[in-house]
Amino acid sequence: MKKGIGNYSIGDAFDDFILIKMSSRGVASNGKPFLTLILRDASGEIEAKLWDTTKEDEDVFVAEQIVRLSGEVNQFRGKPQLKIFSIRAAGEADGVQVSDFIAKAPVEKEVLLEKLTEAIFEMENSSLQRIVRALVKKHQEKLLTYPAASKNHHDYVSGLAHHIVSMLELARSMHALYPEINKDMLYAGVILHDLGKLKELSGVVTTSYTLEGKLVGHIPLMVEEIGDIAKELQIEGEEVLALQHLILSHHGKAEWGSPKPPLIREAELLHLIDLADARMHMLNRALAKVNPGEFTERLFALDNRSFYKPSFEQN
Amino acid sequence: MKKGIGNYSIGDAFDDFILIKMSSRGVASNGKPFLTLILRDASGEIEAKLWDTTKEDEDVFVAEQIVRLSGEVNQFRGKPQLKIFSIRAAGEADGVQVSDFIAKAPVEKEVLLEKLTEAIFEMENSSLQRIVRALVKKHQEKLLTYPAASKNHHDYVSGLAHHIVSMLELARSMHALYPEINKDMLYAGVILHDLGKLKELSGVVTTSYTLEGKLVGHIPLMVEEIGDIAKELQIEGEEVLALQHLILSHHGKAEWGSPKPPLIREAELLHLIDLADARMHMLNRALAKVNPGEFTERLFALDNRSFYKPSFEQN
Amino acid sequence: MKKGIGNYSIGDAFDDFILIKMSSRGVASNGKPFLTLILRDASGEIEAKLWDTTKEDEDVFVAEQIVRLSGEVNQFRGKPQLKIFSIRAAGEADGVQVSDFIAKAPVEKEVLLEKLTEAIFEMENSSLQRIVRALVKKHQEKLLTYPAASKNHHDYVSGLAHHIVSMLELARSMHALYPEINKDMLYAGVILHDLGKLKELSGVVTTSYTLEGKLVGHIPLMVEEIGDIAKELQIEGEEVLALQHLILSHHGKAEWGSPKPPLIREAELLHLIDLADARMHMLNRALAKVNPGEFTERLFALDNRSFYKPSFEQN
Amino acid sequence: MKKGIGNYSIGDAFDDFILIKMSSRGVASNGKPFLTLILRDASGEIEAKLWDTTKEDEDVFVAEQIVRLSGEVNQFRGKPQLKIFSIRAAGEADGVQVSDFIAKAPVEKEVLLEKLTEAIFEMENSSLQRIVRALVKKHQEKLLTYPAASKNHHDYVSGLAHHIVSMLELARSMHALYPEINKDMLYAGVILHDLGKLKELSGVVTTSYTLEGKLVGHIPLMVEEIGDIAKELQIEGEEVLALQHLILSHHGKAEWGSPKPPLIREAELLHLIDLADARMHMLNRALAKVNPGEFTERLFALDNRSFYKPSFEQN
Amino acid sequence: MKKGIGNYSIGDAFDDFILIKMSSRGVASNGKPFLTLILRDASGEIEAKLWDTTKEDEDVFVAEQIVRLSGEVNQFRGKPQLKIFSIRAAGEADGVQVSDFIAKAPVEKEVLLEKLTEAIFEMENSSLQRIVRALVKKHQEKLLTYPAASKNHHDYVSGLAHHIVSMLELARSMHALYPEINKDMLYAGVILHDLGKLKELSGVVTTSYTLEGKLVGHIPLMVEEIGDIAKELQIEGEEVLALQHLILSHHGKAEWGSPKPPLIREAELLHLIDLADARMHMLNRALAKVNPGEFTERLFALDNRSFYKPSFEQN
Amino acid sequence: MKKGIGNYSIGDAFDDFILIKMSSRGVASNGKPFLTLILRDASGEIEAKLWDTTKEDEDVFVAEQIVRLSGEVNQFRGKPQLKIFSIRAAGEADGVQVSDFIAKAPVEKEVLLEKLTEAIFEMENSSLQRIVRALVKKHQEKLLTYPAASKNHHDYVSGLAHHIVSMLELARSMHALYPEINKDMLYAGVILHDLGKLKELSGVVTTSYTLEGKLVGHIPLMVEEIGDIAKELQIEGEEVLALQHLILSHHGKAEWGSPKPPLIREAELLHLIDLADARMHMLNRALAKVNPGEFTERLFALDNRSFYKPSFEQN
Repeated sequence: MKKGIGNYSIGDAFDDFILIKMSSRGVASNGKPFLTLILRDASGEIEAKLWDTTKEDEDVFVAEQIVRLSGEVNQFRGKPQLKIFSIRAAGEADGVQVSDFIAKAPVEKEVLLEKLTEAIFEMENSSLQRIVRALVKKHQEKLLTYPAASKNHHDYVSGLAHHIVSMLELARSMHALYPEINKDMLYAGVILHDLGKLKELSGVVTTSYTLEGKLVGHIPLMVEEIGDIAKELQIEGEEVLALQHLILSHHGKAEWGSPKPPLIREAELLHLIDLADARMHMLNRALAKVNPGEFTERLFALDNRSFYKPSFEQN
Repeated sequence: MKKGIGNYSIGDAFDDFILIKMSSRGVASNGKPFLTLILRDASGEIEAKLWDTTKEDEDVFVAEQIVRLSGEVNQFRGKPQLKIFSIRAAGEADGVQVSDFIAKAPVEKEVLLEKLTEAIFEMENSSLQRIVRALVKKHQEKLLTYPAASKNHHDYVSGLAHHIVSMLELARSMHALYPEINKDMLYAGVILHDLGKLKELSGVVTTSYTLEGKLVGHIPLMVEEIGDIAKELQIEGEEVLALQHLILSHHGKAEWGSPKPPLIREAELLHLIDLADARMHMLNRALAKVNPGEFTERLFALDNRSFYKPSFEQN
Repeated sequence: MKKGIGNYSIGDAFDDFILIKMSSRGVASNGKPFLTLILRDASGEIEAKLWDTTKEDEDVFVAEQIVRLSGEVNQFRGKPQLKIFSIRAAGEADGVQVSDFIAKAPVEKEVLLEKLTEAIFEMENSSLQRIVRALVKKHQEKLLTYPAASKNHHDYVSGLAHHIVSMLELARSMHALYPEINKDMLYAGVILHDLGKLKELSGVVTTSYTLEGKLVGHIPLMVEEIGDIAKELQIEGEEVLALQHLILSHHGKAEWGSPKPPLIREAELLHLIDLADARMHMLNRALAKVNPGEFTERLFALDNRSFYKPSFEQN
Repeated sequence: MKKGIGNYSIGDAFDDFILIKMSSRGVASNGKPFLTLILRDASGEIEAKLWDTTKEDEDVFVAEQIVRLSGEVNQFRGKPQLKIFSIRAAGEADGVQVSDFIAKAPVEKEVLLEKLTEAIFEMENSSLQRIVRALVKKHQEKLLTYPAASKNHHDYVSGLAHHIVSMLELARSMHALYPEINKDMLYAGVILHDLGKLKELSGVVTTSYTLEGKLVGHIPLMVEEIGDIAKELQIEGEEVLALQHLILSHHGKAEWGSPKPPLIREAELLHLIDLADARMHMLNRALAKVNPGEFTERLFALDNRSFYKPSFEQN
Repeated sequence: MKKGIGNYSIGDAFDDFILIKMSSRGVASNGKPFLTLILRDASGEIEAKLWDTTKEDEDVFVAEQIVRLSGEVNQFRGKPQLKIFSIRAAGEADGVQVSDFIAKAPVEKEVLLEKLTEAIFEMENSSLQRIVRALVKKHQEKLLTYPAASKNHHDYVSGLAHHIVSMLELARSMHALYPEINKDMLYAGVILHDLGKLKELSGVVTTSYTLEGKLVGHIPLMVEEIGDIAKELQIEGEEVLALQHLILSHHGKAEWGSPKPPLIREAELLHLIDLADARMHMLNRALAKVNPGEFTERLFALDNRSFYKPSFEQN
Repeated sequence: MKKGIGNYSIGDAFDDFILIKMSSRGVASNGKPFLTLILRDASGEIEAKLWDTTKEDEDVFVAEQIVRLSGEVNQFRGKPQLKIFSIRAAGEADGVQVSDFIAKAPVEKEVLLEKLTEAIFEMENSSLQRIVRALVKKHQEKLLTYPAASKNHHDYVSGLAHHIVSMLELARSMHALYPEINKDMLYAGVILHDLGKLKELSGVVTTSYTLEGKLVGHIPLMVEEIGDIAKELQIEGEEVLALQHLILSHHGKAEWGSPKPPLIREAELLHLIDLADARMHMLNRALAKVNPGEFTERLFALDNRSFYKPSFEQN
């Protein structure tokens, strides 16, 4: 397996294909135009400057274009920067594709789908089961490829499905320990809780927020969609309302985007399971980057804390 | 016009019809059952105790029953209490009805409807106009009778419509002063902003929260309903999204129940107009009860402040 | 099984043994002394007034005394109160003992001890294992009988051990899902996290805060004790420090009593597991008291929320 | 009308008169002195560097000096910067004056004064009227030229008077809708609420905070001045106190600089009207700079929100 | 010295003169009027009910009337209440006066005045000295008798002067330790910081808030008064502004009523000295009421804490 | 006395010995390595860049190395930077040592020790006295050289001892004013309150946080140490607990790192004295750097305030 850009050190030479994630034009102090490129592969991303660009360059070196680039990793104001010696757009003949440059979940899509299907199969309440099955089917393709977030946690291909499947594991353990829990409601909440992100986020490669994501947000979008599907399937009864409540309240507090706090036991549990899986994912990733005896970088989504990796841990 | 219960003083005799708003059973320290009654007419409400009650009493003296009662207004732990000398259920022959005992908006339903219709007629954007017209038509009956809240402000028959019509006045003035405002969007937001309360609140006489009110709340309920009506009317375009955003954000902050803060100019204005009308209503009502030179009771919804009525004001 | 005081309704007659949890003297408006008694059995507690008491009564009817009492459950200011018809102190001949009147964990002490022992046995890091084993052995008796808190959750005999064993289950599931976790550190944290409560709380029957509990609190007390035992066992190395950090940070935030927030992955997880087990316990208990379709009482430790039990749940 | 500096794009040549708003000396890495100039005209401002400056340059190119400058608009660290080709101080012969380079209210001073006078004329309470008239007269010149703030809103010549006159419009509409309002008190509060800024801010061209502005602030300064003028005019009675309260509380909350929250109805309304006018002004300005379908820059004074301009709006 | 009402226990007989602090009329459940009296002497206060009162009683038993009362201290809802056996208004012949029933500072007025005068004499900056001297002279009588607050701390006759003199002691020590401090400014701030309370509070016997206290508050009132006296004395210069700032900021934070936080060293110190003296006073008083080994009642002004008196302290 | 680096202006030549406080390697945009050096002497610190460094340079120019350097003070992005003309490592022959370059307390170590000893001698409670004496003896060397903090206040050699001795002065004054205070407890708290910093901070020259400082913090570390020494000295009794409480609570609030707020009078006072001394120290230092009529830089630890030095102050 080749070395990803996230693993280069200052001074290393680079000569490989890489994907343009973002490209923006500036004008230098000498009055000449240049491009700032964010380049990425599955291991990470790096900034580069392409100086004295022509109009043609600006048309070619755009987001989602793969390029063949040779250069050197330098340091600029404390951050790595890729100094470009030569660059060209990749063509069909190069045999590379966008998906080669994007991180993927450590579990295959097929396995994730199987686990989702299995959980739905276990459900006994037919109202909840039919709603979940219909929504999973409707959104299956996006559900299996979208990330769970634009950054922070599970921000890779199939990240959303991976997050859901991890949470289903936790839900199963919790149900074993606290049998009073309504497993069907909890499973339904876990599977659907972030499905509104398929509308909130723009896509897999250059994940940003859509207009409806910015103005309404994934939580009310999903509440509305559950209402719609229930009408379509002619399902009535408190299950629909309870499920809408689980989605609505899964961020736990009004300040965190849930207009109602959890008021049903399974809603509280959904919130806690979501929190636990997201935090473990972020911590594992950050700790993997440092050696025993070191602290991680500050983690914004964990209250800006910097975590310690004990020195008696095996690396 | 007869004197309402809200205007009786300690020591006054009472002999009139009055409505039971709430009735609950207790057991006295002597072991005998009694009823605690909350009695109301259009001017206010008062507590009363009916001692040594029989099983029959408990069946007769229930919420929404009108009674003929004679007694005296006493004081108990600092609050007025109606001491009952005699009480009987009112019958058909008495010629009284529930609506006689409930406060109404100071403007007639017909006038309110006319003003609403006029505002809708003024709208030029046909998408917004059609959505508003369809929802007003669909909910017309409840919209013209429901209160705007279970307490605090506009908590009387037709309170919601009265609140909307006042806000339309403010919206019109604001538009005159700031012509950049999109009047259609603002009008649509004003008319629909609290329509979700028709699902959130249980009714006109004994207004409480419904289950969907408690678990989902009027804001997401209305966002969903706007989505539904747009699909039904086959209206597409950013107007639907913008309108959903206005509803979603009209409480102004996440902590106050709006998962998104206002991000459109008219959303910000809708929030300010709603605040201003609700506060003026509460202040006017509280100040009407005190004399110049006095402070009002503490107003919970106004940060628990007690307001002063200057002594140079005419009463 | 006999009916506990927590299951009596207003109007029910009571004639049984019951334990005095607290007794305090007052003087009535007629100038005569009386006793306010808090009476409890394993199902709950109730207040009672003993009027016109003698000096002798005050000496006999004290905390931890069992009494034979006949009376009737009345209501006073909205809360149940036991009206006393007759009362006498229980003697040896009555064959009742204090432990009969106190709620116990649903799992036997022996089973709890076995599970604790098993978890300690699984540990591979000998420093952590030796510290945990020494502290469990030192405090074994209290550890197996103390509640986890004076109210809120696991507030019954063996509540602390029950809480620990539930958390160990969660820790085991988490470790299976996230194998990067250092299981030994997490187990050690789970077992010791609340052991400082054995110093903070006064005892099992009339659980209150000790002076060192009030002035220092269970968290710093336990940090100190881990330091002491490590010195005694001559254990050095970062394990001691890491374990002290887990205890110190398990409340998650400075405002909640942890001077350091979790800065080690297992510390974050310990906090989340503690939260989840405590909340599930409180929710299960509150929901068990209401019928489907009803809301629970407000739960102070859950941000004063009142939870809904869906009507499609089996009771 | 000539093109203002706020409308230049990167790469545009500039050759015109412009005003120095601020000038500060630095030393470059080559050890030579340079000047950083902030240049402004009525449309906006831009930074420029004047390299290798002499002592004479430093004496000439100072704040409030108009210069003739030719250069080019470049980009430096993401912000526009004016590259200077040649620069000279303007003289009398150039026929330019400072006021040509400063933004003005969209309404003429004379009109603003007329509207103010009209409102004062409408007042019926002679105590309030005399105080307002005396203070307006005393400060008339500054009142008609000062901005309402050093940035954020109404930060242009006559901005304060423009803000007051807009608020008077809102006050008039509010009074029409809620006739219980004491119009005289509200008008007096509107006219005087920010007059303390004439002492708090240093002037019209280079608006900064005075020492008394920093140490005492415009609110207590104005409370003191109302007390002074009342003594001077020998006006007694609650009107003075009420007016001082309106000024004192118009920021609404202690955290926002009002030691007392509004405790008089008109004080609450004054706060709401001030908020509404300031926010509409900021929103209109920010939205005017973007196209339909775009978001504005973040607006610090509006909780750092970025607002959306719907795509169905006419530009 | 006779035993004060604050030192009576439940069951004690009372037969002495006592002062009515407050009297309010109620109507009992039997329909008869009664008076609730708050009675006080220098040691504390107690509530009493006077049943079945006549119109005459209501005219006689009013605030600031001394009465001769015999009765017994009972307990009512957990608080002491004085049961009245007989009561009569005191007359001239009884030789008692209001001041006999009010707590006084432990230092005589004359001594306090001397210390104030001495501090003023020490001041070297003539502007500050003249302002302080003029204000102390103007308000001397009230300044020497008023309490520093209506409750909490130094709430007795001459409490304000006592508080000032204690703070002057602290200021002197601080100046000795940190000679950089401007002693004159600090002394001036200490002496004047709470002088606005002479306008904010109604008086010595029945201390309540005046209307200007409620609407403007002692801080802005004093800022205004310093401005007035400086104009009167024709004192100009930064001293006046600095002194106004010290008064304005002495509560330390906007939320605590200071629109500007301390921005001058002596302002910060004034805030800290004020805090220290007020807290020590409250703590000493609360601790004096409990025995070693006990906790005090909760102290609202100290964040509702309950303080411990160590058992190794001498009583 | 020679001119310290903190007193150089832009453009000044530098030719002297100076200490490297920190050294870190970077790679320039030309691909060549360079060192960023933080250089300090007792008067302050400055950044410098050493370009085109060799591997040998990196080994020589490290933290705690003294160098002979000639260069010039330039300005880079608004901050002073030392441009290096020549640099060499100092050797024995140069007769300079690390301590020459570090700021020291304005009072000699011997004097500080004498004052500490004197205070301990004054103590009458033998338990408290023995604990304090033992801990001071044990840590004497570090106690007399460590700073009180890594920045903010008393951040120089002997800073901790200097801070303690100042606080003892304040404690003595407070005790004279409020004789109810238990002087022994207060003295013990003052002397020991920050002794945990000897474990929390890494040393005198390059002060950073140790691992136990980061994971446990000086407060719990000191609580543990007091427990240890008491066991060692076989001291029992409430004094130990009270002293642990004083240490634990001296930051005043949970959010500031004290899991218990002060619950003993002397704990409250300790907190106030600590606050006062730290703040006066920071203020004096910041004000010494500016002229009368100027504001200081923003002081982060004083809520980011910028303080004013009145123009009527002597410099």
